[in-house]
Amino acid sequence: MHPQKINGDFKGKNILSLDQFTPKDLSILFKITPKMKRIAKAAKPSKILEGTITTLLFYEPSSRTFGSFSAAVKQLGGQTVEIQNPQAFSSMAKGETFEDTIRVFEAYSDAIVIRHPTQGSAQKASEVTRFTPIISAGDGVGEHPTQALLDLFTIYEKWGRLDGLVGVLAGDLLNGRTIHSLIRGLLLFPKNTLYLLSPRQLRLSRVDFLSFSKRKIKLIEIESEKDMPKNAHFWYWTRVQKERFASLGEYEKVKNRFVVTKELLRKHGNKNMILMHPLPRVGEISTEVDSDERSVYLRSQIRNGMYIRMALLSLVLGKI
Amino acid sequence: MHPQKINGDFKGKNILSLDQFTPKDLSILFKITPKMKRIAKAAKPSKILEGTITTLLFYEPSSRTFGSFSAAVKQLGGQTVEIQNPQAFSSMAKGETFEDTIRVFEAYSDAIVIRHPTQGSAQKASEVTRFTPIISAGDGVGEHPTQALLDLFTIYEKWGRLDGLVGVLAGDLLNGRTIHSLIRGLLLFPKNTLYLLSPRQLRLSRVDFLSFSKRKIKLIEIESEKDMPKNAHFWYWTRVQKERFASLGEYEKVKNRFVVTKELLRKHGNKNMILMHPLPRVGEISTEVDSDERSVYLRSQIRNGMYIRMALLSLVLGKI
Amino acid sequence: MHPQKINGDFKGKNILSLDQFTPKDLSILFKITPKMKRIAKAAKPSKILEGTITTLLFYEPSSRTFGSFSAAVKQLGGQTVEIQNPQAFSSMAKGETFEDTIRVFEAYSDAIVIRHPTQGSAQKASEVTRFTPIISAGDGVGEHPTQALLDLFTIYEKWGRLDGLVGVLAGDLLNGRTIHSLIRGLLLFPKNTLYLLSPRQLRLSRVDFLSFSKRKIKLIEIESEKDMPKNAHFWYWTRVQKERFASLGEYEKVKNRFVVTKELLRKHGNKNMILMHPLPRVGEISTEVDSDERSVYLRSQIRNGMYIRMALLSLVLGKI
Repeated sequence: MHPQKINGDFKGKNILSLDQFTPKDLSILFKITPKMKRIAKAAKPSKILEGTITTLLFYEPSSRTFGSFSAAVKQLGGQTVEIQNPQAFSSMAKGETFEDTIRVFEAYSDAIVIRHPTQGSAQKASEVTRFTPIISAGDGVGEHPTQALLDLFTIYEKWGRLDGLVGVLAGDLLNGRTIHSLIRGLLLFPKNTLYLLSPRQLRLSRVDFLSFSKRKIKLIEIESEKDMPKNAHFWYWTRVQKERFASLGEYEKVKNRFVVTKELLRKHGNKNMILMHPLPRVGEISTEVDSDERSVYLRSQIRNGMYIRMALLSLVLGKI
Repeated sequence: MHPQKINGDFKGKNILSLDQFTPKDLSILFKITPKMKRIAKAAKPSKILEGTITTLLFYEPSSRTFGSFSAAVKQLGGQTVEIQNPQAFSSMAKGETFEDTIRVFEAYSDAIVIRHPTQGSAQKASEVTRFTPIISAGDGVGEHPTQALLDLFTIYEKWGRLDGLVGVLAGDLLNGRTIHSLIRGLLLFPKNTLYLLSPRQLRLSRVDFLSFSKRKIKLIEIESEKDMPKNAHFWYWTRVQKERFASLGEYEKVKNRFVVTKELLRKHGNKNMILMHPLPRVGEISTEVDSDERSVYLRSQIRNGMYIRMALLSLVLGKI
Repeated sequence: MHPQKINGDFKGKNILSLDQFTPKDLSILFKITPKMKRIAKAAKPSKILEGTITTLLFYEPSSRTFGSFSAAVKQLGGQTVEIQNPQAFSSMAKGETFEDTIRVFEAYSDAIVIRHPTQGSAQKASEVTRFTPIISAGDGVGEHPTQALLDLFTIYEKWGRLDGLVGVLAGDLLNGRTIHSLIRGLLLFPKNTLYLLSPRQLRLSRVDFLSFSKRKIKLIEIESEKDMPKNAHFWYWTRVQKERFASLGEYEKVKNRFVVTKELLRKHGNKNMILMHPLPRVGEISTEVDSDERSVYLRSQIRNGMYIRMALLSLVLGKI
């Protein structure tokens, strides 16, 4: 079952997948997000979500996403019910179904943000609720739509558009959930070119590659930094995830295959590009480039996560 | 030591047992509860508990009760201090007594909601505090007064009274804490008749049966669905708790002895009755009856838990 | 690197050590703290921290300190983002550095309160943030500045001054973090005399003793209660920490060497003194003296912890 398209009307919609968004939906969201930035920075408290309760139902720990959603609700004067300790799901231990748990929390909540280790859980939750929108905060190898939205917004904020861009995607392109979402988002806009830099074992799967490149995007696979374009608008670096490898030796061989250093930026970067990373990073971006103005991963990219969630919650709860 | 009677004045009282309530107390509480429902559904935020702090001290996980109390406080503009991870009780690990812990949290709180695995803990906490009311959220096999209150309110909301009712109580009547509380609540009112449906091993204990039936309630033990009355006002179904059985074989034999199905409702139910369950359910109510209008366990019964807690907190904190 | 002196201006400062405070800084803080007491007791909600978010980043459990900070923020109308379950630091498990985690939470927060098992962590956090003040809630055997401040305030509140006082410090003077901080605080003021009562194995280290007594404080080591002064302004009792001993036998020998009883208070105390303890206590103060008016450890000392944290947060966030 495909989640419902947004089609310009966010109110009451579940947010499960980037596929629900048209370019127009993104444009609505991206027009509101800078307002959220101003609200978060203002001394005066916001009352946009006053009187609403958003339940954060985290079946697995994720301190960053949890903190970002918790702060987003509170920045807007809303309240949260926070269930973030998996052991707290005592009723689950007693054999309660996932569906019943969701229905119970629906009774307390104006919206439910759900994080779950199993792909499809957010969708499943949305099929159970009757009045309460579900917002996915990532489910296993499935989608993590708010991460994708903040990535797209970060590029949009810098360049004022999402078409006609050149990007470099690096790292684990085979398993990287954020990479797949980002490509899917950019597919919505014409004339984008993406350079895919990865070790051979971690290349985008052939199925994905073909399905993506059939559409109006240009994908170029490269295996060495020296093939990177000089005119990139953004680099999007990712972590090689240890947990994806059967053998540790195999992991060790590729984990630091591509590392962003001052040297790499000097040789292959350009003055205006931005350097992004979905975090956590382990060693694939050297800390020596943290203070570089082009590095946005520990600055605007993080903060944009909170702003985009503020905007999304306001829209879905029909408060803006 | 018996907890203090409420006698029409909730302010500052500990809420530890249904025995504290007279019919008049229930009537006060049940008059306020629908107002809480309107507040929860209103777009305008409530300020009834503004400026108050309620500490949720959960020594064992209970996601449903925790969420319900957390939401109740926040629906009314109050704030919570939430200690729900038993490992967080570091001072306990260092040998601090329960009494000292309670006194510490008393200093931060206008009210303390306590959940504890050991019977009598809520009472013990209430003997230690000097100004801060304790509200029990269940302690072991002891009482869970807010569950009992929400069950009674759910029946009252449907029928407008708590006397002259016919009910069916099914499942584990021997160990079911909610069953005992419900019977105790209905004992306060005249002319009620309860049919007790359970496997022989899980019948109400003789001691309880005799003590209950000596008072103005009629208890009728039955062992088969075909002996159920046609004119019941409510069915109250419960889970057979695996943890009560020494042998798994014994459990397997009785766990699904009585299951509510469409068929059962058609054959033995009536048009106006309601079907209740304290949750979690495991298999004793088939999901096929979830959408039946008479099924209130995943709808008003859950929501009433939040409303009754809102009403109780408002009264105990003297804000209404 | 030494943390920045406060020098009369709290706004935006990290709070890492008592060494940042001059007597004038303490006087500013102690003038505001009683106002916080009035706010906490008032029925009218405060809006001092309205619109601000304080993240409580607890890398180890500490229910008392966590609850105190959480309540302090909420008493002032502020909001918290609460990360108190170490398992929730999923990104850490994936190999994220402490520095990156701090930067992430900086993006969501107006202030960060950090508790950490490793000495120096709060300082390390403060070197990473750019705009967000760090407030230490204790890091390992390092400092726990808000505990020291509440202890000093409790003495100040009773006596109206922090000079010319006679005190008894008892228990584990070798390892007791709160003892060291209290002595350091009293060193800022002239003419104080401290009697140090401890088993020989747990005496203040020679290095500390000499460094302290070189300054304008008089330290007198005693080994028996009968050498205690009759004119003490306060007794500060502490727990002998089991975890400090290699052998359990060694611990058992000294753990209850000095216990405050009614008898001890009658024989060696005086009418006006106060009896303090940083909690948790295990057996070193008999519960029979809890109701004695001089016992402040479960009363004003606890509450002062919340008030001093309210004052500190208001000052650091520039809201007062």
